[in-house]
Amino acid sequence: MKDVPRSGRRQLLRMTAMLGGGVLAQRQRLLAWETPGKLGAPLGPYGERSPFERAVRWHRESKTPEAGSCFSPLHASVGTITPSSLHYERHHSGIPTIDPSKHRLVIHGLVDRPLSFTMAEIQRLPSITRTLVLECGGNSAGEWAARTGADVQRSYGLVSCSEWTGVPLATLLAEVGVKPTASWVIAEGADACRMERSIPLSKAMENTLLAYGQNGEMIRPSQGYPLRLINPGWEGNTNVKWLHSLKLTNQPYMARDETSKYSDLMPDGKARIFTYRMEAKSVITFPSGGQTLPAIGLYELTGLAWSGNGKIERVDITTDGGRSWTAAELQEPRLPIALTRFRMPWRFEGRETVIASRAVDETGYVQPSREALVAVRGGNSVYHFNGTKFWRVQADGTVTNVDA
Amino acid sequence: MKDVPRSGRRQLLRMTAMLGGGVLAQRQRLLAWETPGKLGAPLGPYGERSPFERAVRWHRESKTPEAGSCFSPLHASVGTITPSSLHYERHHSGIPTIDPSKHRLVIHGLVDRPLSFTMAEIQRLPSITRTLVLECGGNSAGEWAARTGADVQRSYGLVSCSEWTGVPLATLLAEVGVKPTASWVIAEGADACRMERSIPLSKAMENTLLAYGQNGEMIRPSQGYPLRLINPGWEGNTNVKWLHSLKLTNQPYMARDETSKYSDLMPDGKARIFTYRMEAKSVITFPSGGQTLPAIGLYELTGLAWSGNGKIERVDITTDGGRSWTAAELQEPRLPIALTRFRMPWRFEGRETVIASRAVDETGYVQPSREALVAVRGGNSVYHFNGTKFWRVQADGTVTNVDA
Repeated sequence: MKDVPRSGRRQLLRMTAMLGGGVLAQRQRLLAWETPGKLGAPLGPYGERSPFERAVRWHRESKTPEAGSCFSPLHASVGTITPSSLHYERHHSGIPTIDPSKHRLVIHGLVDRPLSFTMAEIQRLPSITRTLVLECGGNSAGEWAARTGADVQRSYGLVSCSEWTGVPLATLLAEVGVKPTASWVIAEGADACRMERSIPLSKAMENTLLAYGQNGEMIRPSQGYPLRLINPGWEGNTNVKWLHSLKLTNQPYMARDETSKYSDLMPDGKARIFTYRMEAKSVITFPSGGQTLPAIGLYELTGLAWSGNGKIERVDITTDGGRSWTAAELQEPRLPIALTRFRMPWRFEGRETVIASRAVDETGYVQPSREALVAVRGGNSVYHFNGTKFWRVQADGTVTNVDA
Repeated sequence: MKDVPRSGRRQLLRMTAMLGGGVLAQRQRLLAWETPGKLGAPLGPYGERSPFERAVRWHRESKTPEAGSCFSPLHASVGTITPSSLHYERHHSGIPTIDPSKHRLVIHGLVDRPLSFTMAEIQRLPSITRTLVLECGGNSAGEWAARTGADVQRSYGLVSCSEWTGVPLATLLAEVGVKPTASWVIAEGADACRMERSIPLSKAMENTLLAYGQNGEMIRPSQGYPLRLINPGWEGNTNVKWLHSLKLTNQPYMARDETSKYSDLMPDGKARIFTYRMEAKSVITFPSGGQTLPAIGLYELTGLAWSGNGKIERVDITTDGGRSWTAAELQEPRLPIALTRFRMPWRFEGRETVIASRAVDETGYVQPSREALVAVRGGNSVYHFNGTKFWRVQADGTVTNVDA
């Protein structure tokens, strides 16, 4: 068998080397547990999670609850997939209720044959499946000015990972016939605000997906049911939900969400626009802000890394405030533009320390320090924060943001 | 970029070659669709699927609804992951409600230090994540005697695939210290029937997992919350749910579920027992029994393949009743012992035909025909059916089981 969990074994060797045999200290010996002796709940058509599990998405209270962001509970995540129910959300005018039998995708503009497609027609076409990270361009925006997020959910929770299934946009563009003068695709959602983003034709031909499936079933309403544009590696906002129209043009639209928003105001007062790609980034999810280590002893330090450029090649961890860095174990398979789980055994000695992670992707891009990032991008930025993230572990085991 | 969906492009080339340009025939041109113009639903803590999506698990009506099987709706699946809510189930005495703070895993028998572990202790240890197929040993049992299943859910729905996260059992066995005389591990569940299976120590040391995570969150109650034994590639029944006890022994237990059940009665009247491994298998999910092709034209034929031996290497498709076979596209990444989605463009000509798939795994094992399987295993078998599966596509587009 070639599927031996070598990674886990290497970690075990490290852990036992650290402790000289016993991986768990200070435990009670053979403690009996009274198992239930009566018939359990019957079979059912649709499984729900345990009532003991209460992790939910958090969002700010607002007078317009149709607009805002829901943050994924990263502190409670395991593995690399985000449950669809807990995938982050960013909405501008609420979640429309769409009957898939009535939904149409219209492709028009600089094409030979403007056409509309039903969902049934789209689902008949050759499809592909890709596991992809989505991250809001404004994820961890609070870290630009000060490290304000009390926990990893509220500060880094606008990132999630799903298995998406759909049709390459290139397939439908071949069907409508793109005119030689076309160079942009304007995508429009069916929500009340008609979310619009301009996508270069080169990206659309390269790997943009018209997705209808998420994690093995149809996309959920809050994720764009029944059809969502997926632009691998690009900021969340370009992955237009409830997609109903694609217009081929010879220039971008300069829509509200690519001019007044989702542009990067540089120190000299000029704005960079169309900064689509999300660069390499990582965050430790355990231990992280708001959590408490119950005792001195051995723990598995873990977190998530990702890059819009491709695969994560390496994640380094510091558990001494940045003086030394150690390579973490990376969960295989490392898929391009997907969440990669990293892990490292770590002994908490009951002394205050500061921990952080630093990702390197397959292009050689190294996640910068916050200071290096601010030195280039200044203090006006809102989007694309990807500086290294430090958590303070206090002597009593409580974990806080470094500036808290 | 290296992440171009080559597979989809190859399929598109095939499809356009088949049709000479237009991939979708007989469609209406530019049909407008009235998009909703009002604010949608507000942000929420936990996302649910669309009310227009109604795929659920099916189970037989019974006077004891705590015992039985729930079949995953494979006909509605996309990609390779099964949503946890729709993962197949097989219960013998219902789903216990377990408070994870009270749950204990006891390891005893032929060990140096019998110990019990809390969930918190287990979750502190080095973990790994693996995407794995689980299949009930009795999946598609109806195919042994006659092809009785009307659709793919009821006949093949006892197979699912999840991303499991947990601790290698080898880690905890090192902690308790296995005595040299031990050769078996007896796993017991906390359900009312105390489900028991005997696992060879060699398997336990090789790749057995103590899983607490499924698809990015804690395992759901119907899947074994809070702890499940995962034996990669072995029949579902060995993946003991609600795991609370592991006893090291020098012989198997010959428990009810490995003697009167989950044994293979051969033509000579002798029974094979401990036939754990699930061999290579595949089934077409579209088009499949109960579905109807709406018109003559191009479709994406698709299905799922898997093997307890490792990766799927190849899936061949026949659309002419077995006279000719063509290699299907396989979705990457092909993970060992996981569902692999296969796809092939196919033109339905309005003439009756019979379709089937045949999987080959990386060991060279070829999924046998039903006839070849029955010739060896006879007519007494209940478990481990993995013969090729044919569906009849009738001239009017309806799809039935070949014997229906």
